[in-house]
Amino acid sequence: MSEQKTFRPKARLPRGFRDRGATTIAAERAMLDTIRRVYESYGFDALETPSFEYADALGKFLPDQDRPNTGVFSLEDDDSQWMSLRYDLTAPLARYVAENFQNLPKPFRRYQVGTVWRNEKPGPGRFREFTQFDADTVGSASPAADAELLMMLADTLEALGLKRGEYIIKVNSRKLLDGVLEAANIDASKRGVVLRAIDKLDRLGERGVRELLGAGRKDESGDFTKGAELNEDQVARVIAFVIPNMEAARTDVLTEIRWAVQDSNAGQIGVEDLRQIQKVLEDCGYAEECIQIDTSTIRGLDYYTGVVFEAQLTFPVQNEDGETVVFGSVAGGGRYDDLVARFTGQQVPATGVSIGVSRLMTALVSRGLTGDVKPLIIVLAIDKDEIARSFAMARELREAGFRAEAYVGTKKFGDQMKYADKRGAAIAIIEGADERASGKVTVKNLQVNAEAAAKDLQDRASWLEARLSQVTVDRADLIKALRETLAGRA
Amino acid sequence: MSEQKTFRPKARLPRGFRDRGATTIAAERAMLDTIRRVYESYGFDALETPSFEYADALGKFLPDQDRPNTGVFSLEDDDSQWMSLRYDLTAPLARYVAENFQNLPKPFRRYQVGTVWRNEKPGPGRFREFTQFDADTVGSASPAADAELLMMLADTLEALGLKRGEYIIKVNSRKLLDGVLEAANIDASKRGVVLRAIDKLDRLGERGVRELLGAGRKDESGDFTKGAELNEDQVARVIAFVIPNMEAARTDVLTEIRWAVQDSNAGQIGVEDLRQIQKVLEDCGYAEECIQIDTSTIRGLDYYTGVVFEAQLTFPVQNEDGETVVFGSVAGGGRYDDLVARFTGQQVPATGVSIGVSRLMTALVSRGLTGDVKPLIIVLAIDKDEIARSFAMARELREAGFRAEAYVGTKKFGDQMKYADKRGAAIAIIEGADERASGKVTVKNLQVNAEAAAKDLQDRASWLEARLSQVTVDRADLIKALRETLAGRA
Repeated sequence: MSEQKTFRPKARLPRGFRDRGATTIAAERAMLDTIRRVYESYGFDALETPSFEYADALGKFLPDQDRPNTGVFSLEDDDSQWMSLRYDLTAPLARYVAENFQNLPKPFRRYQVGTVWRNEKPGPGRFREFTQFDADTVGSASPAADAELLMMLADTLEALGLKRGEYIIKVNSRKLLDGVLEAANIDASKRGVVLRAIDKLDRLGERGVRELLGAGRKDESGDFTKGAELNEDQVARVIAFVIPNMEAARTDVLTEIRWAVQDSNAGQIGVEDLRQIQKVLEDCGYAEECIQIDTSTIRGLDYYTGVVFEAQLTFPVQNEDGETVVFGSVAGGGRYDDLVARFTGQQVPATGVSIGVSRLMTALVSRGLTGDVKPLIIVLAIDKDEIARSFAMARELREAGFRAEAYVGTKKFGDQMKYADKRGAAIAIIEGADERASGKVTVKNLQVNAEAAAKDLQDRASWLEARLSQVTVDRADLIKALRETLAGRA
Repeated sequence: MSEQKTFRPKARLPRGFRDRGATTIAAERAMLDTIRRVYESYGFDALETPSFEYADALGKFLPDQDRPNTGVFSLEDDDSQWMSLRYDLTAPLARYVAENFQNLPKPFRRYQVGTVWRNEKPGPGRFREFTQFDADTVGSASPAADAELLMMLADTLEALGLKRGEYIIKVNSRKLLDGVLEAANIDASKRGVVLRAIDKLDRLGERGVRELLGAGRKDESGDFTKGAELNEDQVARVIAFVIPNMEAARTDVLTEIRWAVQDSNAGQIGVEDLRQIQKVLEDCGYAEECIQIDTSTIRGLDYYTGVVFEAQLTFPVQNEDGETVVFGSVAGGGRYDDLVARFTGQQVPATGVSIGVSRLMTALVSRGLTGDVKPLIIVLAIDKDEIARSFAMARELREAGFRAEAYVGTKKFGDQMKYADKRGAAIAIIEGADERASGKVTVKNLQVNAEAAAKDLQDRASWLEARLSQVTVDRADLIKALRETLAGRA
């Protein structure tokens, strides 16, 4: 290892990546298990595709079309073909369906949970690798398939502990917007740039969107974004559709939309799709407060062709630093009828939902979601030559259902106690030579101890409590004593 | 999407990557849950590091030093720094420990499960992305820490369903080999090439190893691999150590080794470490048939500095094609005291175990490991205008604990039945308009049906069974009928 004598790398992570600890991992596991249970209960089957796809198979459907060379992590394989890390789970699904089409049941219903990568500028709470949890129905053009995903998303959010009213799923259809474009004589080639302008309504407000629909917009830094160059009438029509008259009763929204898309073909289909979906939702008891039509919902991805939707939280969320943060969508999806046709030329209707796991988890953790990790018991090593006895005791405790570790370091008693505290252990077990000779063992309740230390020790009650935090029992009663100590903590 | 009209990518996966279906995923999840339960019960905490590390932080410790430019997937970040996808979970752990050293409890005990990537030539059963499940104790030089990992690995394999005698964990120490090198006056610079030669004993036999220790070896294709260029006496000593006199009783192996390493310092330490480990294993009841010392066990990775071990299966394993395959190690690990020092200059003793999840799973599946996926019930859509009724029924069944899907496709009854069969559904539920009017519902047992179809239909018993596979019950008795049908299957 001569090289390493001259060069020492700095221990640091690439920007936009992070380490995660036991608490976060346990909470996420609990969350993923719940989502999986709901998706499976609806009849979706698990599928796993690999991290890498050929770049051409993946295609480029990321929202940020302004920076076409960014977005994905790509590298050249040794056969000179370019591979990319998946940026979502939908594009790989389209590849999978195209590759295995003949053998799949139709509709094909799969869920997938996995890491996706985005080669984007990282920022606070914005990482370059994160987890998505998707479910898709491929091979059904029926609005029932979309309606089912909406209901399943609502069920999932409620299974995760959210109540009706704490989230809202907003539904729209790209076909409606196609109808508006058609009715307003806007060229189809401008569809993408119009969509991206509308998608910025939350961030830029009506005025910013108007600028982006028109000549363009100069931002605070002075950078200019070219607009869609619609004329005044066209801008007015798009805005009228996206920001409908909110005084109209919510249930009348479909009537209002029907007016905006006039008799355009796409618009009529969009209205009819939403009408069918709305009927199913009403019949199945998914009320207006849970899922509602909202014409400003766009979803950034270019591949959507029909219904689009996203779930938002209605309560303020605090981040890890205790700051209240503006929270975007925690899940979304829609219909993408052209993705499989990219490969086969044959249109295959498809619709899907995707949950942004990390983002939703931040919100759930702020509401008290935790994972399930057993309290830790540490068997201290008083006599290093008797380490096998510590191991045997730890094993006995594990077999009794506890989480138990024998101390395997080389430090003395005081440092072992500090170690147990630092590990957040619930209990330390002490069995010195004297205790062993008299058939005794000492059980130290570390949580009480830490609490007592935090209080004023002059306080007699605290002092007593600190004393009481340690009991010496017959070796045969160890497991009973542990159960009692842990029960006292709960 | 004009571009896509002219170009259609082929739907295919990059070499060495694969899709995995529901059965495999369920089996793996069951397996990972079991490993996690054991690791956590021993007091290891979960940690997650990201997929990417800076290339210099990861270092290059892959076995195949003959091809130094391969092994990892790397790409240049937009700040011109090179990042690599992790090729194992140990190098990232070293980075993590170096970065957070002051705040970590010592010893630091973490487990991590995750995907690792190897940019290697793929082959049958050899993929470029796979899962490892590691546990490491960092900050203890005590052989007790190694012994604990050996016992935990044995416990894990048994928790996964293997019996004593169905696996063997072989233990060695790199220090012993250092002792042999020292005793035989072999230059330390030849350590790596000697290790790699020994590591090929299984594949090349004694003669091949002798050639690689000497002048070199020409393989079947005529390619020549340069050897370690030891003299005859040195080769003889290394071989004598690696292939000890098997007539000696197994329990005497430490005595025999002590002779081979003579009075070299490293060799003495290696023998003492193994002696302490052996004592713990004996005291704790991990018999010779479960964990034993084997001087030919090397482990390919360059970073090991002391104890090394690997677990092998003792029974023949069949692959997915039903062929009996030669099975290498399913888990392994060892002590790597220098990895953290790469960053900090400060030596931090560390030891770890890693389970090769996919490989072990192949073996476990061949012994009947399965995941736990509930049987699927499909509510057919007889009247498309009443899809909300299908959804409501499916929801009722889910709430009663079943896995139930409402058919959301657009096909007719016969195709819906074919769909249910293709999905491997257990039951199809039929509620047509007539049935609904009379308060009835039909429960079709698809498994019996498929079995009957496979038999001779002239056979009267089969015919009766096929008839019996369908019952019409009162709507109020649906859940009872489903329970009975599923119980009859089991």
